[in-house]
Amino acid sequence: MGRLNRSVAATKYVRKPDGSFSKDRRADAITAEEPLEIRVNGATVTTTMRTPGHDLELAHGFLHSEGQIRSAADISTARYCAGAGPDGQNTYNVLDINSTYQPPASKDDGSAGSTLFSTTASPLRLTITNSACGVCGSGSIESIMEKSYRQIKPIKLTPELVLSLPEQLREHQTLFRKTGGIHAAAVFEEDGTFLVAREDIGRHNAADKVIGHLLLEDSLQSNGRILVMSSRASFELVQKAIMAGFSALITVSAASSLAVDLAREAGLTLIAFARENRFNLYAGEMDDSTLQS
Amino acid sequence: MGRLNRSVAATKYVRKPDGSFSKDRRADAITAEEPLEIRVNGATVTTTMRTPGHDLELAHGFLHSEGQIRSAADISTARYCAGAGPDGQNTYNVLDINSTYQPPASKDDGSAGSTLFSTTASPLRLTITNSACGVCGSGSIESIMEKSYRQIKPIKLTPELVLSLPEQLREHQTLFRKTGGIHAAAVFEEDGTFLVAREDIGRHNAADKVIGHLLLEDSLQSNGRILVMSSRASFELVQKAIMAGFSALITVSAASSLAVDLAREAGLTLIAFARENRFNLYAGEMDDSTLQS
Repeated sequence: MGRLNRSVAATKYVRKPDGSFSKDRRADAITAEEPLEIRVNGATVTTTMRTPGHDLELAHGFLHSEGQIRSAADISTARYCAGAGPDGQNTYNVLDINSTYQPPASKDDGSAGSTLFSTTASPLRLTITNSACGVCGSGSIESIMEKSYRQIKPIKLTPELVLSLPEQLREHQTLFRKTGGIHAAAVFEEDGTFLVAREDIGRHNAADKVIGHLLLEDSLQSNGRILVMSSRASFELVQKAIMAGFSALITVSAASSLAVDLAREAGLTLIAFARENRFNLYAGEMDDSTLQS
Repeated sequence: MGRLNRSVAATKYVRKPDGSFSKDRRADAITAEEPLEIRVNGATVTTTMRTPGHDLELAHGFLHSEGQIRSAADISTARYCAGAGPDGQNTYNVLDINSTYQPPASKDDGSAGSTLFSTTASPLRLTITNSACGVCGSGSIESIMEKSYRQIKPIKLTPELVLSLPEQLREHQTLFRKTGGIHAAAVFEEDGTFLVAREDIGRHNAADKVIGHLLLEDSLQSNGRILVMSSRASFELVQKAIMAGFSALITVSAASSLAVDLAREAGLTLIAFARENRFNLYAGEMDDSTLQS
């Protein structure tokens, strides 16, 4: 399937043994990320960012993992929403499922201690959907652009500064050194001055903690700041960076298709795979004055 | 803070240059994972699995990222729920927030194309909470144990088999080779026979896809099967493995505290850091007959 990955233009920077950088603009394959809304008997049970493909399996597995079905026979029909999205085409991002299964009554006494949830999926709070078949990446991007209210200051970073930031982040990863299993987020000024770092098992939580820290200090300003993450760049991390008014997001791992689209739309500099002696620029511009001509 | 990581007993297996294994039982530091429920004006807006610490920052950053506040002044009070959890103690896992901010009316016309959501957080569907202050890891574990209905067959794997499975998984990671940014899940029989593999940008989606595949084939049986993941082992992945009746979960990266607790409670073999020539056993027993005495 062509939707599993997408080719985007990226500029690859490589630090050579003498410390100077080379750059090379080329097509780069990145993983596709699109929302999938799962509806059961007309109500939305979850919307998840996924790589398109095997969506029926995803919906069956999700509902089984949440205890909402016990076998495939519990689902009488499952199909993509038949209508059209905002662009007049079916987005294939909404699955309509009819289920005949009634989960057993929980022994839950109503105390939150026995509430089922998971980190990535909503608890199964059924909400009646008010929409047609329109959930799609471009709609998700529009929604963020509507909500964001901070101006993003355009910045141009040098490749030297870019590679220095993940190195600085690592110095603040005290928990990672102990457990090997935690994400980290840090915020830097445009000139590389360190502001704050936080660690959390969830990358989105680590990002929320550094943003919340600046907010509590009343120092969340749109002045060229850079969010650096030990993780990959997902749509949601680009969302958080834009809402916070940061100018750049630099991640150690890969960027998704929707992350690149949103960053380009919002004017956020997006750099991924920033590790060792290289990184990829997916959105924004660099200060190449230190490059050898 | 002592809650950021926890020491658990683990058995470390190392493959020596001659191919034989050594093992060593010792205390191992793993990252703490606990639920945090965020309530705004009395309604639950999200429950996220996080590493305890800096929870006020997390709540502020989350609400800002979702466009629900614009500054810290929008929050009049924020405090841990004052009551007690199911164990009679405050769990410090519920934050009660009072906000005076009214987000601007969205231009949203009701079509799902402009619904805000993120992969890890629920959309801000406010639901009136019916609970006290009880959300906690042990409650989350109880909830899964209540919902799970498949017997988990106890198995004992040899260290040779354990290390062969992530290697087999890698062979099926066709998208990862192209993009470097995607997770993979695979299911194997107890003897190492490969059944199915799927890739997705979300590890939870990759797991749901392989489980959904077996469910659609009507071959989801509790017969010693092994789920192998390219990711870390979080609470939710252990949940999915247990609900599917698998006997073991093997991950390439770290395990969290709540993942270990849930696996031990359910009788699931849990192995993490399975890469190159080593792995850590956190729950279950091994077949050590091939070890040199």
